[in-house]
Amino acid sequence: MRSHLRIFLTSLLALAAGLALGARVLAAGDPLPSWRDGAAKQEIVAFVKETTDPSSPKFVQPAKRIATFDNDGTLWPSHPMYTQLAFAMDRIKALAPRHPEWKDKQPFKAVLDNDLEAVAASGEKGLLGLIMASHAGMSTADFEKIVTDWLEKAKHPRFKRPYTDLAYQPMLELLEYLRANGFKTYIVSGGGIEFMRPMTEAVYGVPPEQVIGSSIKTKYEMKDGKPVLMRLPEINFIDDKAGKPVGINMFIGRRPVAAFGNSDGDRQMLEWTGAGGGARLMMLVFHDDAEREYAYGPANGLPDTKFGAFSQSLMDEAEKKGWVVISMKNDWNRIFASK
Amino acid sequence: MRSHLRIFLTSLLALAAGLALGARVLAAGDPLPSWRDGAAKQEIVAFVKETTDPSSPKFVQPAKRIATFDNDGTLWPSHPMYTQLAFAMDRIKALAPRHPEWKDKQPFKAVLDNDLEAVAASGEKGLLGLIMASHAGMSTADFEKIVTDWLEKAKHPRFKRPYTDLAYQPMLELLEYLRANGFKTYIVSGGGIEFMRPMTEAVYGVPPEQVIGSSIKTKYEMKDGKPVLMRLPEINFIDDKAGKPVGINMFIGRRPVAAFGNSDGDRQMLEWTGAGGGARLMMLVFHDDAEREYAYGPANGLPDTKFGAFSQSLMDEAEKKGWVVISMKNDWNRIFASK
Repeated sequence: MRSHLRIFLTSLLALAAGLALGARVLAAGDPLPSWRDGAAKQEIVAFVKETTDPSSPKFVQPAKRIATFDNDGTLWPSHPMYTQLAFAMDRIKALAPRHPEWKDKQPFKAVLDNDLEAVAASGEKGLLGLIMASHAGMSTADFEKIVTDWLEKAKHPRFKRPYTDLAYQPMLELLEYLRANGFKTYIVSGGGIEFMRPMTEAVYGVPPEQVIGSSIKTKYEMKDGKPVLMRLPEINFIDDKAGKPVGINMFIGRRPVAAFGNSDGDRQMLEWTGAGGGARLMMLVFHDDAEREYAYGPANGLPDTKFGAFSQSLMDEAEKKGWVVISMKNDWNRIFASK
Repeated sequence: MRSHLRIFLTSLLALAAGLALGARVLAAGDPLPSWRDGAAKQEIVAFVKETTDPSSPKFVQPAKRIATFDNDGTLWPSHPMYTQLAFAMDRIKALAPRHPEWKDKQPFKAVLDNDLEAVAASGEKGLLGLIMASHAGMSTADFEKIVTDWLEKAKHPRFKRPYTDLAYQPMLELLEYLRANGFKTYIVSGGGIEFMRPMTEAVYGVPPEQVIGSSIKTKYEMKDGKPVLMRLPEINFIDDKAGKPVGINMFIGRRPVAAFGNSDGDRQMLEWTGAGGGARLMMLVFHDDAEREYAYGPANGLPDTKFGAFSQSLMDEAEKKGWVVISMKNDWNRIFASK
């Protein structure tokens, strides 16, 4: 019996050693293969090491490992326009037969004429009208189906692929790397919360309860004896700029230790994240790769844009505060998963 | 080598069998010892079995195992008044020296006179005034400290113990039992989200990001070069009655499969939960135990109350829809953890 026990224990030890070896081999594989070696990648790896090593003075308890990611321009493209605006325009076109008056009414006429400049010229009020006409007046379940159907069929005008194929591969690796190290990954976007939720789990591995975004009001109603939530043409919350820390506090109730953005809309989220104690990682994706994706600023003299502008003052704040600016051109050896 | 390998594999099988046996022994222990054997307990156990057994037609994928719990009257007492109202009154008293005008102004005078009837008589507008005076005008960080300090010192007037000692033991067991079976447990309360978050993790095992509640607006500001979120005297969201499905959809983006409440404020949450397909569990705690806790309705002829009323029409809907009514008196052999 004793010798059997010894053999059993020896076998177990061998098994344990084998498992440990396997883990080490896995760990030795590069978790961020689409990131070129450079400052950005080194900052990420160093941050994960110091926050997950229990002997590190900057160790962060697993429950407090919260990382927040902007969506448009950070996880997938925001050019030539926000994906949600493309959806709204397609939706207006689909609804147009029921609204003959739109033919002569701006900004609807501009949408039907594919006149993006006139759409933009309609300003905030015009865009709000488009959003309400395309996003409100149905139940949350119906809206989810409309968005899901659209995402299956719609294609990006330049890359000719579904928008959901255009997640940035380096950011997918970063999301997965953080999760593998005990981080809870959240999306914190100016985009519509119910526009994102139908796809975030499949595309980013982020479940609906970890998506924070802008929203319109909903109302609980009984329809044919069944409860529904009806989407009302009224703004509930704008999760952008100073709204991002507000949304983070509302939904999560904890300050993130890491935050990732790409535009002036993310400035306050990074400030709020950086104002906490201990280890912090704040990063901004800079779109400087016209060849493989897009190039815009106006920071560093790149062209200005209406969709996801990265101002010079944001670049200056990043430098002053030690936020890491990711150059798509230099830091990523691959942009999309499927290219 | 071959024989070593065989011994190794045999040992592994023995180990696996031992582990499986251990798991079965553990499972055989009663996970709900404070629940008396009866319909309520049986419904819970049957629900967990059918939703977690992969061979069951009512199996629910782990990611969709969402359970929502009201707080006041469901997880801890709401009598003789809501804990948050006791906090607001204590806070008004603490602030009174800085507000000499309150001595002659209702409902502040009523609070300072400990005249609960006059407080109640001030109506919704009066109560709102008390909430704003006690809950707004500071940063979220300062408010968290104020609440934490109060919870450490304040005692329930009848049970003479900290409020956080008065969580219902059967409900703590239920929360733990659900979590052990892969459910994500949420609090969905009419109470203030930032009033609950400082204690939900320690008391209920529910982290701040799984707490949904009523809220006032906050505003992102720079103070001495540091960003803060200031609490404004303006309602943001009321997470009660028809607001509960709205809050659930906003924060979670999934329909719960189980929901637990105790009053008319939870009716729509249970309706919304019950309207989904597949296995469902809806339960209402009925306070019929004046001796060990409180007894109120007005359902079943018990006295009416301003705090957590359980109307006869709610009782009728529960019966009609198969919602399980938990009798504190008959279904629980123990009320509090520490008694």
